[in-house]
Amino acid sequence: MTDAYPALEAHFARRSALQGALGILNWDSRTMMPPAASPARAEQLAALEGAIHGALLDERLPDWLEAAETVDLDDWQRANLAEMRREVLLARAVPADLVEANARASSHCEMIWRTAKAEKDFALLLPHLRVVLDRQREIAAANAAVLGCGLYDALHEQYEPGSRVAAFGPVFDEYAAFLPGFLARLEERQATEPAPEPYEGPFPIETQRRLVADLAERLGFNGRIDQSLHAFCGGATGDVRITTRYDEDNFFKALKSSLHETGHALYEMGRPAAWAAQPVGLARGLGVHESQSLSFDMQVGRHPAFLAWLAPQLARAFGREGEAWSVDNLCRRFRRVERSFIRVDADEVTYPAHVILRWRLEQAMIEGRMDLADLPEAWNQGMRDLLGIAPPDDALGCMQDIHWPSGAWGYFPTYTLGAMMAAQLFDAARRDLPGLDEQIGRAEFADLTAWLGEKVHRWGRRLSTHDLLVQATGKPLDAGIFKAHLQARYL
Amino acid sequence: MTDAYPALEAHFARRSALQGALGILNWDSRTMMPPAASPARAEQLAALEGAIHGALLDERLPDWLEAAETVDLDDWQRANLAEMRREVLLARAVPADLVEANARASSHCEMIWRTAKAEKDFALLLPHLRVVLDRQREIAAANAAVLGCGLYDALHEQYEPGSRVAAFGPVFDEYAAFLPGFLARLEERQATEPAPEPYEGPFPIETQRRLVADLAERLGFNGRIDQSLHAFCGGATGDVRITTRYDEDNFFKALKSSLHETGHALYEMGRPAAWAAQPVGLARGLGVHESQSLSFDMQVGRHPAFLAWLAPQLARAFGREGEAWSVDNLCRRFRRVERSFIRVDADEVTYPAHVILRWRLEQAMIEGRMDLADLPEAWNQGMRDLLGIAPPDDALGCMQDIHWPSGAWGYFPTYTLGAMMAAQLFDAARRDLPGLDEQIGRAEFADLTAWLGEKVHRWGRRLSTHDLLVQATGKPLDAGIFKAHLQARYL
Repeated sequence: MTDAYPALEAHFARRSALQGALGILNWDSRTMMPPAASPARAEQLAALEGAIHGALLDERLPDWLEAAETVDLDDWQRANLAEMRREVLLARAVPADLVEANARASSHCEMIWRTAKAEKDFALLLPHLRVVLDRQREIAAANAAVLGCGLYDALHEQYEPGSRVAAFGPVFDEYAAFLPGFLARLEERQATEPAPEPYEGPFPIETQRRLVADLAERLGFNGRIDQSLHAFCGGATGDVRITTRYDEDNFFKALKSSLHETGHALYEMGRPAAWAAQPVGLARGLGVHESQSLSFDMQVGRHPAFLAWLAPQLARAFGREGEAWSVDNLCRRFRRVERSFIRVDADEVTYPAHVILRWRLEQAMIEGRMDLADLPEAWNQGMRDLLGIAPPDDALGCMQDIHWPSGAWGYFPTYTLGAMMAAQLFDAARRDLPGLDEQIGRAEFADLTAWLGEKVHRWGRRLSTHDLLVQATGKPLDAGIFKAHLQARYL
Repeated sequence: MTDAYPALEAHFARRSALQGALGILNWDSRTMMPPAASPARAEQLAALEGAIHGALLDERLPDWLEAAETVDLDDWQRANLAEMRREVLLARAVPADLVEANARASSHCEMIWRTAKAEKDFALLLPHLRVVLDRQREIAAANAAVLGCGLYDALHEQYEPGSRVAAFGPVFDEYAAFLPGFLARLEERQATEPAPEPYEGPFPIETQRRLVADLAERLGFNGRIDQSLHAFCGGATGDVRITTRYDEDNFFKALKSSLHETGHALYEMGRPAAWAAQPVGLARGLGVHESQSLSFDMQVGRHPAFLAWLAPQLARAFGREGEAWSVDNLCRRFRRVERSFIRVDADEVTYPAHVILRWRLEQAMIEGRMDLADLPEAWNQGMRDLLGIAPPDDALGCMQDIHWPSGAWGYFPTYTLGAMMAAQLFDAARRDLPGLDEQIGRAEFADLTAWLGEKVHRWGRRLSTHDLLVQATGKPLDAGIFKAHLQARYL
């Protein structure tokens, strides 16, 4: 079986092509598809997902994987083989009827959640969410058995392979401990400066579209930019597409989301070309992915030098003038920090608190240390501990996110892992590229994107997240760098 | 195995969903995809086509098909089972390496053809086209063995299942015999009327777009209408999409192509909903499909009552007046007949001659009665015999179409089968719907589309093309009705 390894590569390349097809269909669902086609699309997606999952259950794979072990492989091939083995292991760990039961429970619960959230009725959600949680615990147990890790890690693994609570937990706890004091000092300083002037609309969509296209081009993105209800980066290998959303009254939504999605897109475009159709050529994980979007959304997008470049661009594009359109006002707007209930609207400083709350709660529930019925009370107490506020109802509290009802448990930490890695990468890039701040002040990003390409994108899954970060920045994940970044920016 | 039949339905429903996914990807390739994504797309399409073809080779199918024979089934189920058996039979008839050799030969030859046609160099094409022909003859032999039919029928079967040369050949020959005399009389009459006034552009694309959308809506189409290089009807079950192309100097292209594609789309939308994901719920064949597009493109679209409604609409939409925009001029334009070299530009009267020529030649080559090297000479002689003209070079002659280089042998007859069926169906509709001509004069199509839905669309593949036509019109394919239609319209 000397041809076992090439057979594996061919098999996974076909699977990757089907994943590309799935990516295009998902893009179409959210940009082009008439709503009435939704039931037909659900069938297409299910059939395609079935074929993609089924490819990991192919009976020839175990023999091929074993035979390929004995063959002489280079480092990339060996890393690729390890990724293949991991994917097959996880796919075979969870029995088909559990996969199906989980899909059914999540899809049903997600539907109930929309009503329960609208009616602020946690009791309505509870029995359905309990079924989802039970299925998630079963999946966790199945994955944990083959991975040899804890229950929570076994779910988190699906989103950031190799990432473990033992490593990131203390970093998150360090931030949670730092936040109250930092927030108090920040609010004290913030009270001394005037609130930012509002930007009065309307802002023509066509002008916003030109601004977004210009920014994406400056960042080196050359794919499609379309419109959708929620901005996303999607498409396929070799055909990366981003979307944004336009609000006539608020151009910041389009601006922020297109910086964010372009960051994701550059990662997808920069994955190692020779391995793009192989498991080792995939993006490392969702945490690393988020670090790339936040490199542009948060690190570049709120960088004072960038804002100094951006403010006159905006004034010119919309034909406006006055105090609201000054550099100073734009900086004040982006530096504004507020304790608030809703994660997706949170600022750079308080966002990690929202994530840490969810991580602590979901870990306790998955590990059976907390009952789901106690969630609202635990949520509100957690908000008080972390941010000193508690929501008036569960729609603004524990029912705000789609993740749990839709079966995405273990996902939340990737947001804050991404934010911390983005800060750490930017800090290292600044050391490696002495002219970086000045370049950003001229909206020149070629050096930064080349650096990210060299340090992150081109590695695919060849290195673990830990090794990638150490190789790029000289140290493992370090809350200290993130804290230093926030102190520099907000104090 | 009492559950063999339900298992078959589930299997073919999944396959249908994958075909839907393929339809959306193909649509995207021609409307949305950035050109640079073309290699990635080729991989996606190949993987998806492989999965769709592979579903017919599933090892469980022969047992299920056999077991389902013994179960009590209703008429639709029995017809569905027969269609399943036919698809599996044909898929298993052609060995995988021949499928691949054919795909490779066609794709290579199609590339060569583009150059050969541009350089008018048949000698360049010949060796490559010979490989394609050899593969087609092997496929014909494989299919013929399981179908128990002639070599040519075995290829034609792929496009219009159940259609046989023994049935349509004499009808085509009858038309070929009728044409010279008819053409002479027509040209005599045509010489007595002035040539149509030209329509002077430019015609704003936005206005054309509104005209197209309005017409499609009047016809009952409610899906996406986009733009592509060549107009087509595509998408998926439950998500039918058409495209058109806009030329600022000639609005007739968009008008004609959208009537044509809407006809295809109404057929796809009208397939039996309960069977839409099953083989028996598919459109009967490409000939019947073409009859639906030509019902609107040719029967309605050149109907004098429709043109009387259309002429003032056009004048108003483009803000024009004068002789060119009169009803009379529009009728003269659409009644113009000309002997010409290029099939796709041919009028309603001479188009069948182009098809009959190709059918006779490809049949002779598939059956080994004619050598490919003799094609140019035979082509030119055939043109002289049928239309009394011969092309000055092979680019205007035997190299004009993509069909043969790309491996579509046995396809051509479906165009003229469609034209003849359209005339025969319209003739019957007129008998069944006494107010039809007046309705068409008001651009009201609800009765006609309901009649086509009832007589054609809703039957899927439940009836053979022959039975469908007999049930709808009272007789089998009849050149006489087509000839009568042309005599009424052109003399």
